[in-house]
Amino acid sequence: MPHEPQTAILLIDCPDKKGLVATIANFLYTYNANILHADQHQDHDKQLFLMRIEWDLDGFTLDEGAFRAAFAPIATQNGMNWRLEYSSTKTRVAIFCSKMDHCVADLLYRHRAGALRCDIALVASNHPDCKPLADFYGIPFHQFAVTPENKPQVEQQQIDLCRANAVTLIVLARYMQILSPAFVQAYPSQIINVHHSFLPAFIGAKPYQRAFDRGVKLIGATSHYVTQDLDEGPIIEQDVMRVSHRDSLERMVERGKDLEKRVLARAVEWHTEHKILLYNRKTVIFD
Amino acid sequence: MPHEPQTAILLIDCPDKKGLVATIANFLYTYNANILHADQHQDHDKQLFLMRIEWDLDGFTLDEGAFRAAFAPIATQNGMNWRLEYSSTKTRVAIFCSKMDHCVADLLYRHRAGALRCDIALVASNHPDCKPLADFYGIPFHQFAVTPENKPQVEQQQIDLCRANAVTLIVLARYMQILSPAFVQAYPSQIINVHHSFLPAFIGAKPYQRAFDRGVKLIGATSHYVTQDLDEGPIIEQDVMRVSHRDSLERMVERGKDLEKRVLARAVEWHTEHKILLYNRKTVIFD
Amino acid sequence: MPHEPQTAILLIDCPDKKGLVATIANFLYTYNANILHADQHQDHDKQLFLMRIEWDLDGFTLDEGAFRAAFAPIATQNGMNWRLEYSSTKTRVAIFCSKMDHCVADLLYRHRAGALRCDIALVASNHPDCKPLADFYGIPFHQFAVTPENKPQVEQQQIDLCRANAVTLIVLARYMQILSPAFVQAYPSQIINVHHSFLPAFIGAKPYQRAFDRGVKLIGATSHYVTQDLDEGPIIEQDVMRVSHRDSLERMVERGKDLEKRVLARAVEWHTEHKILLYNRKTVIFD
Amino acid sequence: MPHEPQTAILLIDCPDKKGLVATIANFLYTYNANILHADQHQDHDKQLFLMRIEWDLDGFTLDEGAFRAAFAPIATQNGMNWRLEYSSTKTRVAIFCSKMDHCVADLLYRHRAGALRCDIALVASNHPDCKPLADFYGIPFHQFAVTPENKPQVEQQQIDLCRANAVTLIVLARYMQILSPAFVQAYPSQIINVHHSFLPAFIGAKPYQRAFDRGVKLIGATSHYVTQDLDEGPIIEQDVMRVSHRDSLERMVERGKDLEKRVLARAVEWHTEHKILLYNRKTVIFD
Repeated sequence: MPHEPQTAILLIDCPDKKGLVATIANFLYTYNANILHADQHQDHDKQLFLMRIEWDLDGFTLDEGAFRAAFAPIATQNGMNWRLEYSSTKTRVAIFCSKMDHCVADLLYRHRAGALRCDIALVASNHPDCKPLADFYGIPFHQFAVTPENKPQVEQQQIDLCRANAVTLIVLARYMQILSPAFVQAYPSQIINVHHSFLPAFIGAKPYQRAFDRGVKLIGATSHYVTQDLDEGPIIEQDVMRVSHRDSLERMVERGKDLEKRVLARAVEWHTEHKILLYNRKTVIFD
Repeated sequence: MPHEPQTAILLIDCPDKKGLVATIANFLYTYNANILHADQHQDHDKQLFLMRIEWDLDGFTLDEGAFRAAFAPIATQNGMNWRLEYSSTKTRVAIFCSKMDHCVADLLYRHRAGALRCDIALVASNHPDCKPLADFYGIPFHQFAVTPENKPQVEQQQIDLCRANAVTLIVLARYMQILSPAFVQAYPSQIINVHHSFLPAFIGAKPYQRAFDRGVKLIGATSHYVTQDLDEGPIIEQDVMRVSHRDSLERMVERGKDLEKRVLARAVEWHTEHKILLYNRKTVIFD
Repeated sequence: MPHEPQTAILLIDCPDKKGLVATIANFLYTYNANILHADQHQDHDKQLFLMRIEWDLDGFTLDEGAFRAAFAPIATQNGMNWRLEYSSTKTRVAIFCSKMDHCVADLLYRHRAGALRCDIALVASNHPDCKPLADFYGIPFHQFAVTPENKPQVEQQQIDLCRANAVTLIVLARYMQILSPAFVQAYPSQIINVHHSFLPAFIGAKPYQRAFDRGVKLIGATSHYVTQDLDEGPIIEQDVMRVSHRDSLERMVERGKDLEKRVLARAVEWHTEHKILLYNRKTVIFD
Repeated sequence: MPHEPQTAILLIDCPDKKGLVATIANFLYTYNANILHADQHQDHDKQLFLMRIEWDLDGFTLDEGAFRAAFAPIATQNGMNWRLEYSSTKTRVAIFCSKMDHCVADLLYRHRAGALRCDIALVASNHPDCKPLADFYGIPFHQFAVTPENKPQVEQQQIDLCRANAVTLIVLARYMQILSPAFVQAYPSQIINVHHSFLPAFIGAKPYQRAFDRGVKLIGATSHYVTQDLDEGPIIEQDVMRVSHRDSLERMVERGKDLEKRVLARAVEWHTEHKILLYNRKTVIFD
């Protein structure tokens, strides 16, 4: 793979008005930025301007502090929500899992193969099953015995662990515990989950069984940010696969795991490359 | 296209037990059938045996009456639900539509191009919009002014019209009226509908708007048999298409129409080729 | 559908260097442009900068002549290839076809339904088969009897006809004649073709038969610009569909037609919305 | 997962004639077979009959030897090619790889997760890179230093190793050596390979680079049986993924790896479940 340049990424959303692109592009040009990617999008309904811009730091004359100082007045003047990211500062990921290991195995493999540009700080689980995988890939593994009684304390320990490891993204890789609102609030827009999805939706218990009983022709999976509304957070990625009556329930579940792996890995990839802009209840993916 | 043989198709579902394939195959062989396609499926949960078998009538020694007489005892003995179809007896289709013509135009085109092996007996609508299309393709067009008050009478007229035209399949090609239970009962498992489908489902009004607001990454469509439970009948075909924030709501609706056309045409194709076996609330497609 | 604004679209490719976005954005802002879409792309290998920018003409202070005059020095200074398009100036399309009408029927339907924002000026064919369709949709139909002997003259007549009708895009909708280099040169990057595609490729005669004999699991179609190298022009869109041994050769061909319709319509949609930037032998689709 | 029954599978191809299904079904019924799956297919062009039939061994009155003795005359009389397989006799797989480990890692994971019903006997490679993975999954790893000079001897050692391990399927998981005709002949229809596939095909060196330069919109992968004609063997599975100008060459290669994993795993799954019937240069997949 060729040498990758050190880059900075600026993500902005603000009320739309004339001259925003010029203002931002001028600002960057003034400090000698070589823009590598610039994507913008207007939400015409909501009159919003959304932008992702990435530039090579080679020759750029502002360091992080100077950038923040210089850009702040422009941001204020235009009512911008903005984030500045550096490709050299990798997202630090905690993977939460339970017994099923298909998503964990996939993420750890992709990480080691260089396809995910992040640090995986730790694997946390309420079961021991994934420990050998974590060991193989050299990632610290932490087991927490969660009971209905000790859940608040365990969650606090998990938050502490994540903070101690400077974690900035928690990936729920088929973690079979529902996070409390307090936990979700501790990592706003920094928790990604994956769940199966069907057309039509089968809400409630045993969705695969019910989809099978209904004879669905497609099964799907969705990755999304976790919000207070369970499984209702902003969608990041979705995919489907064709099934038929020739597929047993077991095979359908197996195929579903492949989908889950794929849409979760894609979400982690985009998040850690700062390609997702989240606003209202939806995402824009600047892929 | 090569000369297509005249065939008979037998569709069976019954409790599973040993020897069913042998029994049916022997019966057909006794009367000199040349089997062209034989597909079977077991629903292991429900202990059901399902089969579709198609044979060339050339050389077959039973006519329809003789077949029915000879096969009846076997069917009774094995508790079979069965249907006998002849490729020479084409399904007679009534297309019901409203203002939107994308599905009507697609079905009429495919029919004339020879891709749908059925007779289209008539187009019925509560609006005049599709009349020119029906005229162009030489299909009789019937307009019904439906109001909440006259709906029962109009439905009776529609049923009468279908019966007078020997219709055996009603295709709801974006027909924006909900059929009454009485109508559905008049054509059991003989009415096919299409509707948009999303992951997750957006039940209720303005689904495209809500899917758009939620930032879905896939839009879908489902064709299904109409039962008393609105949009909950057995699924025949489903498909999806990728969308992104770059697609406006209008474009999403446009893409959705393409999906609707496709999954509806596929359903009509399979139904009229007698490839669908319907049991419980699901379909087996012997494609 | 909501009222659509009158817009201008600028398509640029030039050697990459710092400050290009700022330069262009400033230029537009100076004349009070309200930018609706801005997409850019860098070809890092070839050190090229590619951009599509679309703005609302409401309030914009330059008319076309003034724009061209004012922008020319900037373009020259930066070595830009550039095109300026107006949404009010619709692409004028000529559809060329032979006997098969699936693509013609699809394009004419989409056009009338408002899904293709272009004018269809005429349908030209070497066979009479598509005349009724053209008549139905109210598009002038021109038949040309092409023989090996008169081909140069017929092509000249076709060019004359297109010129007389101010045609700016020729769509080969399964037109079974190979255009001469002279014809291609008369409409550079303005002729779109569609052909079937397989994995692996089956070059030469009877590709469906050979793909069928080889047991391919996917069939595909590709739309592309026509260049001197037959079927080797820049790819615009591609799609595939799954097939199995259960599909007869006839059904495979039928499915292939569906793909051809779809990828050709998509290509016409993107071309007429000025979303395609063509450089070297490839396209960038600013969808 | 529920208890899976012990089953036998019979795969047949022979000249088509009347009564074949009856003959086979009667034979099985005579010995008290409970048929679980029966799929048949006619190649009408070649007048061939192809069948896969699977039955529960519980209650079946013939052991393997008795079956072979009893069925042989029927097979001879009807000119059948036939194979008898038992679900209890698992396919023994050797995975051949080089440096790239994405397919190996995927196959080993799926095997351990129970999604591949086979024994993985060994991993063989001309490089040490995949040893840790093989060790982790507890599969013996064998390294062979291949040079142009010693290739015939190494191949013989590999064949000996496979024979010593009762290997019945060799999976080339991105093995970057071309097998000699002698090797291929030693394992006829028992070697599966995977390679990238493009529309159109890019034959020769650096296919990804050339596909990228051409701006393809889809990338694909194909798994196939290895025959004397390199990459021209019967196709087992194919899949594609959408790419755009936003994907770098590196990302395209990364996406391609995902496809390769998937189509190779699918091929191994079908082969080891005896769902593939190979005839002439094509496969029928009785999925």
